[in-house]
Amino acid sequence: MIHFRVATAKDLNRIVQMLADDELGKTRERYETPLPESYIKAFESIDADPNNELVVACRDEEIIGVLQITFTPYLTHQGSWRATIEGVRTASTERGQGVGSRLIEWAIERAKERGCHLFQLTTDKQREDALRFYERLGLKATHEGLKMKLSID
Amino acid sequence: MIHFRVATAKDLNRIVQMLADDELGKTRERYETPLPESYIKAFESIDADPNNELVVACRDEEIIGVLQITFTPYLTHQGSWRATIEGVRTASTERGQGVGSRLIEWAIERAKERGCHLFQLTTDKQREDALRFYERLGLKATHEGLKMKLSID
Repeated sequence: MIHFRVATAKDLNRIVQMLADDELGKTRERYETPLPESYIKAFESIDADPNNELVVACRDEEIIGVLQITFTPYLTHQGSWRATIEGVRTASTERGQGVGSRLIEWAIERAKERGCHLFQLTTDKQREDALRFYERLGLKATHEGLKMKLSID
Repeated sequence: MIHFRVATAKDLNRIVQMLADDELGKTRERYETPLPESYIKAFESIDADPNNELVVACRDEEIIGVLQITFTPYLTHQGSWRATIEGVRTASTERGQGVGSRLIEWAIERAKERGCHLFQLTTDKQREDALRFYERLGLKATHEGLKMKLSID
Protein backbone atom coordinates (compact mmCIF):
# COMPACT_ATOMS: atom_id res chain seq x y z
CA MET A 1 0.00 0.00 0.00
CA ILE A 2 1.63 3.25 -1.18
CA HIS A 3 0.71 6.53 0.45
CA PHE A 4 1.93 10.10 0.08
CA ARG A 5 2.68 12.68 2.74
CA VAL A 6 4.64 15.86 3.38
CA ALA A 7 8.22 15.07 4.42
CA THR A 8 9.50 15.78 7.92
CA ALA A 9 13.04 16.49 9.12
CA LYS A 10 13.39 12.81 10.05
CA ASP A 11 13.02 11.85 6.38
CA LEU A 12 15.83 14.08 5.15
CA ASN A 13 18.63 11.51 5.34
CA ARG A 14 16.70 9.02 3.23
CA ILE A 15 15.64 11.70 0.74
CA VAL A 16 19.22 12.86 0.15
CA GLN A 17 20.25 9.21 -0.25
CA MET A 18 17.68 8.86 -3.06
CA LEU A 19 18.69 12.17 -4.69
CA ALA A 20 22.30 10.97 -4.79
CA ASP A 21 21.42 7.48 -6.11
CA ASP A 22 21.06 8.59 -9.72
CA GLU A 23 23.31 9.04 -12.78
CA LEU A 24 23.32 12.84 -12.57
CA GLY A 25 22.62 13.13 -8.85
CA LYS A 26 25.68 11.11 -7.85
CA THR A 27 27.94 13.73 -9.47
CA ARG A 28 26.43 16.68 -7.64
CA GLU A 29 24.95 15.54 -4.31
CA ARG A 30 26.83 14.71 -1.09
CA TYR A 31 25.20 11.91 0.84
CA GLU A 32 27.39 11.81 3.94
CA THR A 33 27.11 11.32 7.70
CA PRO A 34 26.43 13.79 9.12
CA LEU A 35 24.47 15.32 6.28
CA PRO A 36 25.98 18.60 4.96
CA GLU A 37 24.38 21.58 6.71
CA SER A 38 23.24 23.02 3.35
CA TYR A 39 20.62 20.24 3.00
CA ILE A 40 19.27 20.93 6.48
CA LYS A 41 18.98 24.66 5.80
CA ALA A 42 17.26 24.05 2.46
CA PHE A 43 14.83 21.65 4.11
CA GLU A 44 13.97 24.26 6.74
CA SER A 45 13.33 26.90 4.06
CA ILE A 46 11.08 24.55 2.08
CA ASP A 47 9.23 23.46 5.21
CA ALA A 48 8.61 27.07 6.28
CA ASP A 49 7.26 28.18 2.90
CA PRO A 50 3.51 27.64 2.32
CA ASN A 51 4.18 27.64 -1.45
CA ASN A 52 6.64 24.75 -1.31
CA GLU A 53 5.93 21.14 -0.38
CA LEU A 54 8.40 18.30 -0.19
CA VAL A 55 6.40 15.10 -0.67
CA VAL A 56 7.40 11.49 -0.08
CA ALA A 57 5.84 8.30 -1.38
CA CYS A 58 5.91 5.55 1.27
CA ARG A 59 5.29 1.82 1.22
CA ASP A 60 4.29 1.17 4.83
CA GLU A 61 7.03 3.07 6.71
CA GLU A 62 9.62 2.94 3.93
CA ILE A 63 10.22 6.01 1.77
CA ILE A 64 10.36 4.95 -1.89
CA GLY A 65 9.89 8.22 -3.75
CA VAL A 66 10.23 11.97 -3.41
CA LEU A 67 9.47 15.19 -5.24
CA GLN A 68 9.22 18.88 -4.47
CA ILE A 69 6.24 20.90 -5.66
CA THR A 70 6.30 24.69 -5.81
CA PHE A 71 3.17 26.83 -6.24
CA THR A 72 3.77 30.19 -7.93
CA PRO A 73 1.37 33.04 -8.75
CA TYR A 74 2.01 34.59 -12.17
CA LEU A 75 0.49 37.48 -14.10
CA THR A 76 0.80 35.60 -17.39
CA HIS A 77 -2.14 33.47 -18.64
CA GLN A 78 -4.51 36.13 -17.20
CA GLY A 79 -3.08 35.85 -13.71
CA SER A 80 -2.89 32.25 -12.57
CA TRP A 81 -1.04 29.86 -10.32
CA ARG A 82 1.35 27.19 -11.60
CA ALA A 83 2.79 24.09 -10.00
CA THR A 84 6.43 23.28 -10.75
CA ILE A 85 7.97 19.98 -9.75
CA GLU A 86 11.64 19.30 -9.15
CA GLY A 87 13.88 16.69 -7.55
CA VAL A 88 11.75 13.71 -8.57
CA ARG A 89 13.24 10.37 -7.55
CA THR A 90 12.02 6.82 -7.13
CA ALA A 91 14.14 4.43 -5.03
CA SER A 92 16.39 2.47 -7.39
CA THR A 93 14.89 -0.80 -6.12
CA GLU A 94 11.40 0.37 -7.11
CA ARG A 95 11.98 1.69 -10.63
CA GLY A 96 9.73 0.46 -13.43
CA GLN A 97 6.94 -0.47 -11.04
CA GLY A 98 4.71 2.54 -11.45
CA VAL A 99 5.74 4.39 -8.28
CA GLY A 100 6.98 7.37 -10.30
CA SER A 101 3.73 7.61 -12.25
CA ARG A 102 1.69 7.51 -9.08
CA LEU A 103 3.87 10.20 -7.53
CA ILE A 104 3.38 12.52 -10.53
CA GLU A 105 -0.36 11.79 -10.66
CA TRP A 106 -0.57 12.61 -6.96
CA ALA A 107 1.27 15.90 -7.61
CA ILE A 108 -1.11 16.77 -10.46
CA GLU A 109 -4.09 16.30 -8.14
CA ARG A 110 -2.38 18.38 -5.47
CA ALA A 111 -1.74 21.13 -8.04
CA LYS A 112 -5.45 21.14 -8.94
CA GLU A 113 -6.39 21.37 -5.26
CA ARG A 114 -4.17 24.42 -5.00
CA GLY A 115 -5.92 26.00 -7.99
CA CYS A 116 -3.04 25.73 -10.45
CA HIS A 117 -3.80 26.07 -14.17
CA LEU A 118 -0.45 24.77 -15.34
CA PHE A 119 1.76 21.89 -14.20
CA GLN A 120 5.37 22.10 -15.31
CA LEU A 121 8.90 20.82 -14.89
CA THR A 122 12.22 20.76 -16.66
CA THR A 123 14.20 17.60 -17.28
CA ASP A 124 17.83 17.33 -18.33
CA LYS A 125 18.11 16.47 -22.04
CA GLN A 126 20.47 13.65 -21.01
CA ARG A 127 17.52 11.91 -19.30
CA GLU A 128 15.84 10.48 -22.39
CA ASP A 129 13.82 7.94 -20.40
CA ALA A 130 12.50 10.68 -18.14
CA LEU A 131 11.31 12.70 -21.13
CA ARG A 132 9.34 9.72 -22.46
CA PHE A 133 8.00 9.03 -18.97
CA TYR A 134 6.62 12.56 -18.62
CA GLU A 135 5.22 12.57 -22.16
CA ARG A 136 3.33 9.35 -21.41
CA LEU A 137 1.78 11.13 -18.42
CA GLY A 138 0.48 13.88 -20.71
CA LEU A 139 3.11 16.62 -20.44
CA LYS A 140 4.33 18.25 -23.64
CA ALA A 141 7.90 19.38 -24.28
CA THR A 142 6.85 22.73 -25.76
CA HIS A 143 9.63 24.74 -24.11
CA GLU A 144 13.39 24.95 -23.94
CA GLY A 145 14.71 24.86 -20.38
CA LEU A 146 17.66 27.24 -19.99
CA LYS A 147 19.95 27.35 -16.96
CA MET A 148 22.98 29.29 -15.84
CA LYS A 149 25.15 28.57 -12.81
CA LEU A 150 25.89 31.60 -10.65
CA SER A 151 29.03 32.16 -8.61
CA ILE A 152 28.13 33.84 -5.36
CA ASP A 153 31.14 32.88 -3.24
CA MET B 1 18.41 56.68 -18.06
CA ILE B 2 16.93 53.23 -17.40
CA HIS B 3 16.28 52.12 -13.85
CA PHE B 4 14.70 49.05 -12.30
CA ARG B 5 12.26 48.79 -9.41
CA VAL B 6 9.65 46.50 -7.88
CA ALA B 7 6.25 47.03 -9.52
CA THR B 8 3.33 48.57 -7.63
CA ALA B 9 -0.41 48.14 -8.16
CA LYS B 10 -0.43 51.36 -10.23
CA ASP B 11 1.85 49.70 -12.81
CA LEU B 12 -0.43 46.71 -13.39
CA ASN B 13 -2.38 48.15 -16.31
CA ARG B 14 0.78 48.94 -18.26
CA ILE B 15 2.33 45.57 -17.42
CA VAL B 16 -0.67 43.62 -18.72
CA GLN B 17 -0.64 45.81 -21.85
CA MET B 18 2.97 44.72 -22.47
CA LEU B 19 2.24 41.04 -21.72
CA ALA B 20 -0.56 41.13 -24.31
CA ASP B 21 1.52 42.96 -26.94
CA ASP B 22 3.34 39.86 -28.13
CA GLU B 23 2.81 37.07 -30.68
CA LEU B 24 1.93 34.44 -28.07
CA GLY B 25 0.68 36.83 -25.40
CA LYS B 26 -2.03 38.33 -27.60
CA THR B 27 -3.70 34.92 -27.91
CA ARG B 28 -3.87 34.30 -24.16
CA GLU B 29 -3.96 37.61 -22.28
CA ARG B 30 -6.95 39.96 -21.86
CA TYR B 31 -5.91 43.59 -21.80
CA GLU B 32 -9.27 45.26 -21.12
CA THR B 33 -10.71 48.16 -19.12
CA PRO B 34 -11.32 47.44 -16.34
CA LEU B 35 -8.59 44.83 -16.04
CA PRO B 36 -9.89 41.29 -15.36
CA GLU B 37 -9.95 40.59 -11.61
CA SER B 38 -7.66 37.57 -12.08
CA TYR B 39 -4.70 39.87 -12.86
CA ILE B 40 -5.35 41.92 -9.73
CA LYS B 41 -5.53 38.83 -7.54
CA ALA B 42 -2.33 37.41 -9.06
CA PHE B 43 -0.57 40.74 -8.51
CA GLU B 44 -1.62 40.74 -4.85
CA SER B 45 -0.30 37.19 -4.38
CA ILE B 46 3.04 38.05 -5.99
CA ASP B 47 3.34 41.28 -4.01
CA ALA B 48 2.63 39.48 -0.71
CA ASP B 49 5.19 36.71 -1.30
CA PRO B 50 8.77 37.48 -0.19
CA ASN B 51 10.00 34.87 -2.69
CA ASN B 52 8.42 36.56 -5.71
CA GLU B 53 9.31 39.93 -7.21
CA LEU B 54 7.67 41.63 -10.15
CA VAL B 55 10.23 44.04 -11.57
CA VAL B 56 9.82 46.83 -14.09
CA ALA B 57 12.41 48.60 -16.21
CA CYS B 58 11.64 52.33 -16.51
CA ARG B 59 12.93 55.14 -18.69
CA ASP B 60 12.18 58.18 -16.56
CA GLU B 61 8.57 57.51 -15.52
CA GLU B 62 7.70 55.24 -18.45
CA ILE B 63 7.62 51.47 -17.98
CA ILE B 64 9.45 49.81 -20.87
CA GLY B 65 10.11 46.28 -19.57
CA VAL B 66 8.91 43.72 -17.05
CA LEU B 67 9.79 40.34 -15.62
CA GLN B 68 8.90 38.21 -12.62
CA ILE B 69 11.61 36.57 -10.56
CA THR B 70 10.87 33.70 -8.17
CA PHE B 71 13.33 32.49 -5.52
CA THR B 72 12.96 28.83 -4.57
CA PRO B 73 14.82 26.70 -2.02
CA TYR B 74 15.61 23.19 -3.28
CA LEU B 75 17.25 20.12 -1.79
CA THR B 76 18.94 19.25 -5.09
CA HIS B 77 22.47 20.56 -5.81
CA GLN B 78 23.28 20.05 -2.10
CA GLY B 79 20.45 22.25 -0.93
CA SER B 80 20.47 25.59 -2.72
CA TRP B 81 18.27 28.43 -3.90
CA ARG B 82 17.38 29.06 -7.52
CA ALA B 83 16.01 32.08 -9.33
CA THR B 84 13.42 31.45 -12.03
CA ILE B 85 12.28 34.19 -14.37
CA GLU B 86 9.00 34.36 -16.23
CA GLY B 87 6.82 36.84 -18.10
CA VAL B 88 9.73 38.75 -19.63
CA ARG B 89 8.64 41.56 -21.95
CA THR B 90 10.18 44.65 -23.46
CA ALA B 91 7.84 47.33 -24.83
CA SER B 92 7.44 46.76 -28.59
CA THR B 93 8.76 50.27 -29.29
CA GLU B 94 11.98 49.46 -27.42
CA ARG B 95 12.91 46.08 -28.85
CA GLY B 96 16.41 45.58 -30.23
CA GLN B 97 17.85 48.39 -28.11
CA GLY B 98 19.35 46.38 -25.28
CA VAL B 99 16.59 46.91 -22.73
CA GLY B 100 15.89 43.17 -22.53
CA SER B 101 19.56 42.36 -21.94
CA ARG B 102 19.82 44.94 -19.19
CA LEU B 103 16.67 43.57 -17.57
CA ILE B 104 18.06 40.01 -17.54
CA GLU B 105 21.46 41.20 -16.31
CA TRP B 106 19.71 43.07 -13.51
CA ALA B 107 17.79 39.89 -12.61
CA ILE B 108 21.02 37.87 -12.54
CA GLU B 109 22.56 40.34 -10.09
CA ARG B 110 19.39 40.24 -7.97
CA ALA B 111 19.53 36.42 -7.97
CA LYS B 112 23.12 36.56 -6.71
CA GLU B 113 22.13 39.01 -3.96
CA ARG B 114 19.50 36.51 -2.87
CA GLY B 115 22.12 33.76 -2.72
CA CYS B 116 20.88 31.76 -5.72
CA HIS B 117 23.24 29.21 -7.28
CA LEU B 118 21.20 28.72 -10.43
CA PHE B 119 19.35 31.12 -12.72
CA GLN B 120 16.75 29.53 -14.96
CA LEU B 121 13.78 30.02 -17.25
CA THR B 122 11.81 28.23 -19.91
CA THR B 123 11.03 29.72 -23.29
CA ASP B 124 8.48 28.49 -25.82
CA LYS B 125 10.19 26.63 -28.68
CA GLN B 126 8.25 28.89 -31.07
CA ARG B 127 10.29 31.85 -29.80
CA GLU B 128 13.51 31.20 -31.75
CA ASP B 129 14.76 34.74 -31.30
CA ALA B 130 14.26 34.52 -27.53
CA LEU B 131 16.33 31.33 -27.38
CA ARG B 132 19.23 33.01 -29.18
CA PHE B 133 18.84 36.08 -26.95
CA TYR B 134 19.17 34.02 -23.77
CA GLU B 135 22.05 31.96 -25.15
CA ARG B 136 23.96 35.17 -25.93
CA LEU B 137 23.48 36.13 -22.27
CA GLY B 138 25.15 32.90 -21.16
CA LEU B 139 22.24 30.57 -20.48
CA LYS B 140 22.40 27.02 -21.83
CA ALA B 141 19.41 25.07 -23.16
CA THR B 142 20.35 21.88 -21.32
CA HIS B 143 16.78 20.95 -20.36
CA GLU B 144 13.44 20.17 -21.93
CA GLY B 145 10.64 22.31 -20.54
CA LEU B 146 7.46 20.26 -20.17
CA LYS B 147 4.02 21.72 -19.45
CA MET B 148 0.50 20.44 -18.96
CA LYS B 149 -2.66 22.54 -18.73
CA LEU B 150 -4.93 21.61 -15.82
CA SER B 151 -8.70 21.91 -15.77
CA ILE B 152 -9.83 23.01 -12.35
CA ASP B 153 -13.21 24.51 -13.16
